[in-house]
Amino acid sequence: MTGAEHLIETAVAAGVEVCFANPGTTEMPLVAALDAVPGMRAVLGLFEGVCTGAADGYGRMTGKPAMTLLHLGPGLANGLANLHNARRAHSPVVNVVGDHATWHLGADAPLTSDIVSLASPMSGWVRASTSARAVASDAAEAIAAAAGPRRQVATLIVPADCQWQEGAPAAPIPPARRPPVVAAAIERAADVLQRRTPVTLFLGGDALGRRGLEAAARIAARSGCKLVYETFPARLERGAGIPAPLRLPYFPEQALELLAGTATLLLAGASAPVAFFGYPNGPSSLVPEGCDLATLARFDEDVVAALEDVADRIGATTPVAAPARQPELALPTGPLNVATVGAALAALQPDGAIIADESATSGGPYGQLSAAALPHTILGLTGGAIGHGFPTATGAAIACPDRRVIAFQADGSGLYTLQALWTQARESLNVTTLVCANRLYRILQMEAARGGAKELGRNARMLTELAPPALGWVELARGFGVPGARVTTADELVTQLRRALDAEGPQLIEMVL
Amino acid sequence: MTGAEHLIETAVAAGVEVCFANPGTTEMPLVAALDAVPGMRAVLGLFEGVCTGAADGYGRMTGKPAMTLLHLGPGLANGLANLHNARRAHSPVVNVVGDHATWHLGADAPLTSDIVSLASPMSGWVRASTSARAVASDAAEAIAAAAGPRRQVATLIVPADCQWQEGAPAAPIPPARRPPVVAAAIERAADVLQRRTPVTLFLGGDALGRRGLEAAARIAARSGCKLVYETFPARLERGAGIPAPLRLPYFPEQALELLAGTATLLLAGASAPVAFFGYPNGPSSLVPEGCDLATLARFDEDVVAALEDVADRIGATTPVAAPARQPELALPTGPLNVATVGAALAALQPDGAIIADESATSGGPYGQLSAAALPHTILGLTGGAIGHGFPTATGAAIACPDRRVIAFQADGSGLYTLQALWTQARESLNVTTLVCANRLYRILQMEAARGGAKELGRNARMLTELAPPALGWVELARGFGVPGARVTTADELVTQLRRALDAEGPQLIEMVL
Repeated sequence: MTGAEHLIETAVAAGVEVCFANPGTTEMPLVAALDAVPGMRAVLGLFEGVCTGAADGYGRMTGKPAMTLLHLGPGLANGLANLHNARRAHSPVVNVVGDHATWHLGADAPLTSDIVSLASPMSGWVRASTSARAVASDAAEAIAAAAGPRRQVATLIVPADCQWQEGAPAAPIPPARRPPVVAAAIERAADVLQRRTPVTLFLGGDALGRRGLEAAARIAARSGCKLVYETFPARLERGAGIPAPLRLPYFPEQALELLAGTATLLLAGASAPVAFFGYPNGPSSLVPEGCDLATLARFDEDVVAALEDVADRIGATTPVAAPARQPELALPTGPLNVATVGAALAALQPDGAIIADESATSGGPYGQLSAAALPHTILGLTGGAIGHGFPTATGAAIACPDRRVIAFQADGSGLYTLQALWTQARESLNVTTLVCANRLYRILQMEAARGGAKELGRNARMLTELAPPALGWVELARGFGVPGARVTTADELVTQLRRALDAEGPQLIEMVL
Repeated sequence: MTGAEHLIETAVAAGVEVCFANPGTTEMPLVAALDAVPGMRAVLGLFEGVCTGAADGYGRMTGKPAMTLLHLGPGLANGLANLHNARRAHSPVVNVVGDHATWHLGADAPLTSDIVSLASPMSGWVRASTSARAVASDAAEAIAAAAGPRRQVATLIVPADCQWQEGAPAAPIPPARRPPVVAAAIERAADVLQRRTPVTLFLGGDALGRRGLEAAARIAARSGCKLVYETFPARLERGAGIPAPLRLPYFPEQALELLAGTATLLLAGASAPVAFFGYPNGPSSLVPEGCDLATLARFDEDVVAALEDVADRIGATTPVAAPARQPELALPTGPLNVATVGAALAALQPDGAIIADESATSGGPYGQLSAAALPHTILGLTGGAIGHGFPTATGAAIACPDRRVIAFQADGSGLYTLQALWTQARESLNVTTLVCANRLYRILQMEAARGGAKELGRNARMLTELAPPALGWVELARGFGVPGARVTTADELVTQLRRALDAEGPQLIEMVL
């Protein structure tokens, strides 16, 4: 067996089931191994950012890594932006990147580059294999690093000769243990909560699952603490019957306003909040001045158990009834705008939907209304690198074929990785894409106004307006094999969204805002 | 004036005229400066790979750098693949990448990453500014590094506060001098050529301009040496009346066959040839065993003057008549295939056309026939990172508004950066795109066969076939605002190509092969 075959065998044995791939010549032995060794599903992305974003979405939904297969430095580079998002979301991903044969690296052939330098910023674990016999063991370590309690992006670089030469089985890897919850942290949290000074429990990571949210709600009901969650959650359970904490606002002054008066900020699965961007005379940290910071559990600890322990310790044992589906989820009518878009989506999304949310400035009203929608999962733009929505939706649909996936997508961001639509068509995935076509980089126009610009100059308009010419999303979708419809009123949206959510396979709706 | 304004002022004063941009929040002071300081044209790309590829094409055609404006690490990452190509082509490019405010970097905000680590593999010069007063001087150094004799990619990282704070003018940069041609190298080359042992003159870089090719042709006529040029030239002048050396074949065994019997390989603007990829039992270097290697001029020396000096020294002063336009450039008829595609393009391309050639496995016949086409410029995929053709064509059209640009484009590669079509539409560029829609990663199927595969397995087919579903290039083009047509016969191609080359603004023709 070749090194490549041993690598795939190792991955399959470790439970890796899907490979999101865009291979090249230096990965062909691995492509052959994907057929020689049964058990792995190969899914083609027409651009590497599709592969890495899909692996992120898959990892968020399954908790286990998919593999990506990428071609040398440039192929990895094309996937880095979505690996950045995966890193920030603590998603498990195993990248396998081919490289030139070890004896060819010194020739500095045209496609040679420093892959380790490229991979390191977006990876928690990086290694370049140096022999065919080590490849499978290297892969086992990569998988262990990715799937362990830290859940991270692991990148393994495999020279072509290490793939095609005779390999060897992987050495066994001892399973990594999740660090135990620190008892002192639980005690301290319970003390702080019982002190009756204003506490904000800041939730992130696994705390945003249903069990974590329910424990947090009990704690809040008992202690009076405020519940706030990360602005861009990697994965948030939401909807009727699920406790809905407050979202930390995006702009720093609004975030500080929400946290004002907090005596202790208690972190549960989240890091201390910081401004998304620094502004002139703006803050860097969002922890209010004079506010104590305490950590109940880090993202890689068992934050759910920690929340439940704290709840028990303070006597918060009575389940809290979360609001049920609200009657105001009426279907919208009239003009199409971000409010009616949010209302239509919240009202029509089916039970158990997965929402890949890259709606950016068009998502505000939906973010409010979704608390009363049927229970669903939100996948957020955790790392802020745009071009995440289409690929993440694709990976989530591969991970959860029994659930409907909805990509709620800003147009400017969607243009980065629209090639994912083709993968949705090829794999017949039940993804419904809602494109918010405001034909602007609206956030940038808001930032210009925040920066004091009264009016945009010609170049600033050229760089923040997406028309003319207006993008034809229906035509783009059709070009990738996805049926589409364009809507300009709320009533049309309701009709088309109902139809799309009943259809088999992917659908796209361009909402002209 | 802000640091950002001083930066733009410095760039304009240095002759930088175009900024290919996809900015974000951390670049907004630079966006404002593009209006506050006159003289720079801002061109929006909907994806950063479009911006960097356009800057590469612009740099190849003008010999001077365009600026790119990219958003933080992920934005730069999206542009790296085409910067890789620019680096390999020795194109002058100045990247300006925004970063978080200096005082915000330590907060590790969501979009923070190690930008220097990302930039370094694809840049010859990298710096992160540390104060607003240094920004303009840093920019001056970046421009000098990019535009100097080495012509390279220079990346300047500018924290947001260094943009918005009060800046200072740039310190003057002494002009970099091109290293003088080494007289001994010219003497040695002349000696070798006069020895009458078999010499191959291996041409690259500036040697592939008309003057370099004419000097090389005189040398060959006088000395009997063989003329061979780099497989993927950054910029090659070609066509009727221009000497046409032999192209070094892509596959190593064919390249070695062409070079067999060479006693001395004389490098003129090219590096010693190496295999594009290493294969089992294949070579790394393409210099035949026992062949001497000698350098007439490196890419950063004045290779044209060196060739002319050598020609004079060996008495090769009589101009060589290069073949004129051949009568066999008849218009093709009948089925559409790579031969009839090549014939149609070679016959119909107008005088002075610029061909952005990313035709991959579909380009062979055209590569032969183009020697008899009207004089034109070829821009090749020098670095091998696919997704280069559409953006390069876009930048070349901005650089040369009076010339017709033709993107001769493989479909798999084109899907990487198809967003460039929108920039062509917005800027009304005269770019005609010919998509070779063979609906395969054909090179990978060839590589699998070379690797011994008799038949492709299911996963290998899934990863090398681009259908189903078939891409609809006409619909994709229309979605980006570019009119398109689909052709299935040579006759239709002739009709549509004639029409497209007469039209104002961009056009796309999908050639179903």
